[in-house]
Amino acid sequence: MPPHPPQANGERVLADLNALRTIGAYKTGVHRPTFSEAHARSLEWLANKLPEAQLTAAVDGIGNVLGTSRKAGPKLLAGSHLESQNHAGWLDGPLGVIYALEAARVLNPDPDVNGAVEVASWCDEEGHFGQFLGSRSWVGAVSEDDIDAARDRSDGRSMREAIAAVGLAGRPRLRAVRGRHIGYLEAHIEQGETLQSGGLKIGIVTSIVGIWQYRIAFAGEQNHAGTTRMAIRKDAGLALARFCVAIDETFPEICGPRTVWTTGRITLDPGSPSIIPGAAEMLFQMRDVDSAVIERLEERLRAMATDATARGPCSVTVERLRTGMPCQMDASFQDAIEAAGAELADGKSLRMPSAAGHDAQVLASIMPAGMLFVPSIGGVSHHWTENTADEDIVTGAQVFVETCRKLLMR
Amino acid sequence: MPPHPPQANGERVLADLNALRTIGAYKTGVHRPTFSEAHARSLEWLANKLPEAQLTAAVDGIGNVLGTSRKAGPKLLAGSHLESQNHAGWLDGPLGVIYALEAARVLNPDPDVNGAVEVASWCDEEGHFGQFLGSRSWVGAVSEDDIDAARDRSDGRSMREAIAAVGLAGRPRLRAVRGRHIGYLEAHIEQGETLQSGGLKIGIVTSIVGIWQYRIAFAGEQNHAGTTRMAIRKDAGLALARFCVAIDETFPEICGPRTVWTTGRITLDPGSPSIIPGAAEMLFQMRDVDSAVIERLEERLRAMATDATARGPCSVTVERLRTGMPCQMDASFQDAIEAAGAELADGKSLRMPSAAGHDAQVLASIMPAGMLFVPSIGGVSHHWTENTADEDIVTGAQVFVETCRKLLMR
Repeated sequence: MPPHPPQANGERVLADLNALRTIGAYKTGVHRPTFSEAHARSLEWLANKLPEAQLTAAVDGIGNVLGTSRKAGPKLLAGSHLESQNHAGWLDGPLGVIYALEAARVLNPDPDVNGAVEVASWCDEEGHFGQFLGSRSWVGAVSEDDIDAARDRSDGRSMREAIAAVGLAGRPRLRAVRGRHIGYLEAHIEQGETLQSGGLKIGIVTSIVGIWQYRIAFAGEQNHAGTTRMAIRKDAGLALARFCVAIDETFPEICGPRTVWTTGRITLDPGSPSIIPGAAEMLFQMRDVDSAVIERLEERLRAMATDATARGPCSVTVERLRTGMPCQMDASFQDAIEAAGAELADGKSLRMPSAAGHDAQVLASIMPAGMLFVPSIGGVSHHWTENTADEDIVTGAQVFVETCRKLLMR
Repeated sequence: MPPHPPQANGERVLADLNALRTIGAYKTGVHRPTFSEAHARSLEWLANKLPEAQLTAAVDGIGNVLGTSRKAGPKLLAGSHLESQNHAGWLDGPLGVIYALEAARVLNPDPDVNGAVEVASWCDEEGHFGQFLGSRSWVGAVSEDDIDAARDRSDGRSMREAIAAVGLAGRPRLRAVRGRHIGYLEAHIEQGETLQSGGLKIGIVTSIVGIWQYRIAFAGEQNHAGTTRMAIRKDAGLALARFCVAIDETFPEICGPRTVWTTGRITLDPGSPSIIPGAAEMLFQMRDVDSAVIERLEERLRAMATDATARGPCSVTVERLRTGMPCQMDASFQDAIEAAGAELADGKSLRMPSAAGHDAQVLASIMPAGMLFVPSIGGVSHHWTENTADEDIVTGAQVFVETCRKLLMR
């Protein structure tokens, strides 16, 4: 029996993740929004690390970091993102980047490994300025006009200004070289509690949910909150509240087993305590891996709006803002993760869909793609208390590196 | 039979109201928030007009304009306000000020009239910086600390800064001289459609509603809108929507005939489409002329919050922000308005409560007070389309002047 090949160095992985955690630290998490000073420092940190893995680093004009190899043989692309949601967790993004770096450090110098792992950190996966702008730029789906138009969702600052502020203005944007990569592998925290509650270590992502987003607007009549009798009011805020409750009563009967829906933002106009809202708006989102389910739900949503308008006293309009088709992960990538998990995680793996969007779905448009999850403690995500046990981080790194080896050695 | 005494000059009243309408004009209404440049010009306009009525004008350190008379005999105070809600109507406030000016112009020079009408324009009745700060200052209910703390509700600018910007910093604040006035009379648009729909011309205000205001807060658990299954969510926004709907289903059974309630503002935290709101808040207001009704409703509101918390998954807390006891108008003032209406409005008057708050409720704390309403077209209020027919404005002015005469001549 041959000696076991080199594996991930768990201590090195934890040390790197903790080093990134100090950049933009917020409580036990990080505050590292896209193109913040902390985000820029994290990109520089990574670019300085890549040579350890025999990779040449480049930071491009949209904040992507790419590490490229001169080694002969097949190339596997791996990565994730370094910016965070506001006041969010330390692993959402960095985990996948450090796993990719570790795989490159272990496999690229190894003469027994045919080919190399190349590392990517995609900019703005968290959507401060848009939707997957970094990875979509790399696959050729973002125009200069798109960048001109993009603004920070929290403060309205233009993306051009933000790019200039971190010193990246005028740099070219890197683009995928077709045929260079055998595929893309990304690791991420689960952001749910399926793995933890099942005593499992590795999630093998089968598909990534589609995300459909809507603006639902209610038009009533603005009036004085004292002098307008209840009977004649056209309160757009109340119409909105009724609609929210109706969705929640209707959808469970017709949704799929994993469908989720969320009203994340509500605005009443003018928003004054002494004025009956004349207009109201909600941002509504649905996710499912089955687009047929979403089509059924959207049809119902529109029918509910038509009914509510007909009943009055307010009119309701539904506008789709975002159409995110579900995305399948490559079957051979799933098999490779499962095989690595059998060897290094006692087979404690589970095939499961991803209920969150990831850059892997963008990469899947031009190459085979796969994703691996590690457990999230309590399923907490997009919050600074997000965390994963150190031993689970290490196990995940080992399975990730081994998966990369198997994919390169096929 | 003696000749009919001098009456209001309808053309002069309309001309003055239209002159004020040009100051901060917005569509067919005005945008004249407290301490805006347009507001300052309207105060100056009034101060320049007061000598026409044999009044000495003063603008005080909180933006009140007072016109005082040297005529012997009883003094009746009359007025309203000149600032507006944002992008609101032309008559809400100015109508009462111009009626007061007209009464002073007609009655003060008349040697047959015993005493004089004095004119007041109270600052910030519309509450840009607080609650009735101008009239409350005059009755002695506003401290320097209150002014230090007051901020513009729309942009957070301090009241001190705003006062300085219109050149009033350092001026003394005028205070009521106890015993000087036999009472206070204020005219206002109805801000409802009771008069219009009944073919009536004059509302005789019997009482001013109390306004109780609440912050209702919902605490849930912030989480990822994709990865958190519906069954385990603690969505504070959905809890809020359910609570709004429950109020609207419960209150009609236990409210009074004229109770109104309004949710004017809703905030979800963090307000992002991909995050389940962990916290939510609504500003809720109730109004009634009977405080026993409000006590009953508040008790139910608190019971509903307790029940909702017990049922879960979110907790609900109710905090009272404002306690506005109802206020009775003086009976003899009501009789005087009715008598004047019988002579000059064909008796087309109606005794009715005011569902909006007015400076008259503040003045009523130190002297007898009365209010007169004129019709509002379509009941529109706090919107630039607010309007009253010219002939109704003129009829209102005649009844107002005659009411002042009757009160002075008692």
